[in-house]
Amino acid sequence: MEEDTGAIPRKEDFSSWYNEILWRAEIMDVRYPVKGLYVWYPHGFGIRKRAYAILREIMDRDHAETMFPLLIPKTEFMKEAEHIKGFEDEVYWVTHGGRTELDVPLALRPTSETAIYPMYSLWIRSHTDLPLKLYQIVNTFRYETKHTRPLIRLREITSFKEAHTVHATREEAEAQVEAAIRLYREFYDRIRVPVIVSRRPAWDRFPGADYTVALDTIMPDGKTLQIGTVHMLGDHFSRTYEITYEDVNGEQQYAYQTCYGISERSIAAVISVHGDDKGLVLPPEVAPIEIVIVPIIVGKRRDEVISAARALELELRDAGYTVKVDDRDMRPGAKYYHWEMRGVPLRIEIGPRDIDANTVVAVSRTGRKTTLDRRGVVEGIHSILAEFGEEISEVARRAMADRITTTSSLEETAEALKTGVAVVHWCGSRECAEKIEAVVDAGIIGSEIHSGLITVSDGPCIACGSKGTSALVARTY
Amino acid sequence: MEEDTGAIPRKEDFSSWYNEILWRAEIMDVRYPVKGLYVWYPHGFGIRKRAYAILREIMDRDHAETMFPLLIPKTEFMKEAEHIKGFEDEVYWVTHGGRTELDVPLALRPTSETAIYPMYSLWIRSHTDLPLKLYQIVNTFRYETKHTRPLIRLREITSFKEAHTVHATREEAEAQVEAAIRLYREFYDRIRVPVIVSRRPAWDRFPGADYTVALDTIMPDGKTLQIGTVHMLGDHFSRTYEITYEDVNGEQQYAYQTCYGISERSIAAVISVHGDDKGLVLPPEVAPIEIVIVPIIVGKRRDEVISAARALELELRDAGYTVKVDDRDMRPGAKYYHWEMRGVPLRIEIGPRDIDANTVVAVSRTGRKTTLDRRGVVEGIHSILAEFGEEISEVARRAMADRITTTSSLEETAEALKTGVAVVHWCGSRECAEKIEAVVDAGIIGSEIHSGLITVSDGPCIACGSKGTSALVARTY
Repeated sequence: MEEDTGAIPRKEDFSSWYNEILWRAEIMDVRYPVKGLYVWYPHGFGIRKRAYAILREIMDRDHAETMFPLLIPKTEFMKEAEHIKGFEDEVYWVTHGGRTELDVPLALRPTSETAIYPMYSLWIRSHTDLPLKLYQIVNTFRYETKHTRPLIRLREITSFKEAHTVHATREEAEAQVEAAIRLYREFYDRIRVPVIVSRRPAWDRFPGADYTVALDTIMPDGKTLQIGTVHMLGDHFSRTYEITYEDVNGEQQYAYQTCYGISERSIAAVISVHGDDKGLVLPPEVAPIEIVIVPIIVGKRRDEVISAARALELELRDAGYTVKVDDRDMRPGAKYYHWEMRGVPLRIEIGPRDIDANTVVAVSRTGRKTTLDRRGVVEGIHSILAEFGEEISEVARRAMADRITTTSSLEETAEALKTGVAVVHWCGSRECAEKIEAVVDAGIIGSEIHSGLITVSDGPCIACGSKGTSALVARTY
Repeated sequence: MEEDTGAIPRKEDFSSWYNEILWRAEIMDVRYPVKGLYVWYPHGFGIRKRAYAILREIMDRDHAETMFPLLIPKTEFMKEAEHIKGFEDEVYWVTHGGRTELDVPLALRPTSETAIYPMYSLWIRSHTDLPLKLYQIVNTFRYETKHTRPLIRLREITSFKEAHTVHATREEAEAQVEAAIRLYREFYDRIRVPVIVSRRPAWDRFPGADYTVALDTIMPDGKTLQIGTVHMLGDHFSRTYEITYEDVNGEQQYAYQTCYGISERSIAAVISVHGDDKGLVLPPEVAPIEIVIVPIIVGKRRDEVISAARALELELRDAGYTVKVDDRDMRPGAKYYHWEMRGVPLRIEIGPRDIDANTVVAVSRTGRKTTLDRRGVVEGIHSILAEFGEEISEVARRAMADRITTTSSLEETAEALKTGVAVVHWCGSRECAEKIEAVVDAGIIGSEIHSGLITVSDGPCIACGSKGTSALVARTY
């Protein structure tokens, strides 16, 4: 795979930048011969692997991992009317096995409620079986008719982490919604993606849910990307699938449920939020290679430099870092280009002068150069990487804050939406939402905003002037 | 989920034992409403998770993990005639997206050659791109018409680890076949499942391969279970999918390929090889819970005992073990039953007398009881678990050796096959294989046997009397 070392589009031109970065940094190959299906390159999959290890660690604290089948018989799938209506145009159907037509067509799960809840109905008998908190990481499918885009709008979502919980009471289920939001915030904190948490309007909730809370980040083009959702299901599904338990008094009760999901959009967010005009910028927490060592070879001292690089590699590996020595026969500059494109957080240069001075030069992906004493180099690198992580978190947080404007008229809102999102006052009615949408060409995406970046207040609805509260207006992916 | 504490079938009655164990030990739920699809219980998935972590660790040494789409367009799928012939009756077809009929039907991968190799054709340009060694862990599908069985014969294989390598020369590809066999042997050593490695007869090779080497274990009923295969593909697929590279002289050459796979049959093998009349017996390496602590509560010293158990739990957790304290309000005997069924390698009992004597009692899943000094308990447990692992490896190895009989006539072979497999001399011809199969109601499954358990020699074919070498005759799953 020969490297194209030409310039890439600037990040301002986000859509071109994103497409170019995906193959140049070896994240996804878009040449698979089916629309909306893509191939993970090993480097991209390495990012996914580390990010999902963090997600698993968080979930495993008080959820158990499990796995349900991909194929859902049409008969089960069709039981839940509201849910189905939300998905029926998007479901792939398996109709044949070999040359035989199946008696009952099988749906490829678009999400797993209708696969999991019939089993929950068998598993849950008593209040002592509750709460039940399971999750799985699986592929799911949507027959997207809109424009598809790698990691963002897919026909095969390869990395859907979906959790499904069951509780004895509505209050416990509502508390679980809050707990899930905390878990997801922690996940995004750790992969350094800033988020806004808000409640979706009623018409935009998950099919079959009482309400939906979503996590969004703002992309460089100002559009929001939904990167996590938490649904309060109430007793809607438990009544359809007969998920009941015997309470302490020996009476049968319907259970209350929640579900929540995160997909590889989390990876799209990491890439988009942190990348720059040179390529990817990866948080150390998700970088498949955290440190690249580039031996600076001048003339006769080649072997000495290579062996110094190898010694450093071993020392850093022992300290728990993933390290690569790039001793390919090419100019250092071309190597810098190569690893910057792929987002490696730290580059270490080591040459004859460094050996003589007993130092190494560390250059962070954002260009900070530090000369480190060779002795105690591990501690030095540890603090550089920690600072680098904080730095990119802070830059991302500020970039997002800059894209949020509080507005008090439709005109201001339309203006703000050119570069980001607007926080308006809205009365909560669908009618006013539609009025706002008609003028600003964007939608109300959330109310009841929880986020340190946004100050929430009451005020007159920008459409009708009656009492309103803060709501988010955005163009969305 | 209330526990059935009744007796389970004896392991001699293997098929009943296996079915009963799957739900009693919470491995798989067979009540999913589609034949051949099953649900992983969290405990079962916990075993899978640990076993596959070992597999990933082994693969990651010199393979990169990746992920290709599930759906393969019929046009690509149909390119490789021999390969297709092997799968066409077993492929599930997606024909509709929403209410729209697809222009090109999509196959659910039965295996991924036809998804991966068109991309390899794009990725490989030069000899410097080789060798390429990728793997993925994915779900694959077979429309099985035979009797299905959890973990063994499935319509959705949820845990297919498939590796696909590309090399410049036939010799390098052949060397990779040997390397893959070593990796798989290491995996099975570490999960303590004994294997026989042999070459499949030509008519039983993978569709499209030059030859296939397989790893089999012998199940308690004497049948073999194929738990790993390694295929030498030669240049068969590279010619179909145009996988070529420019060699050092600037000439285009076809590449040589191998592929190899392991599925959740590996978990079926762990369960079947080690289990006993009380339930699962798990190697410490794959047990989701390695140690259960049962506080023995008598009268007034309840709090003291519970807090001693908790202190021990923390100490063992710090030492890296997964530990559970079972302080449920029930008889110790019922707890022992519960955890023995689920295969927990070590139980620690701690009661007032132990506290007074500053000891704990450790009981291995195979019944070895040791009184340990409370001080230095971590080291004590470490060596008990190591011994326990060796013990179950050795028991499994001996059980397998006992099921292998060297025979020199068709009658002896038929007799040996009642309880296990037979090693015969065979000339290598299909005609003689069919004669043998007709009499003994079992098949020639392998020749060129590599395994310390079997002594390989030359001798007269038991069917025709001409020159033959050792071959394996078995009833297979």
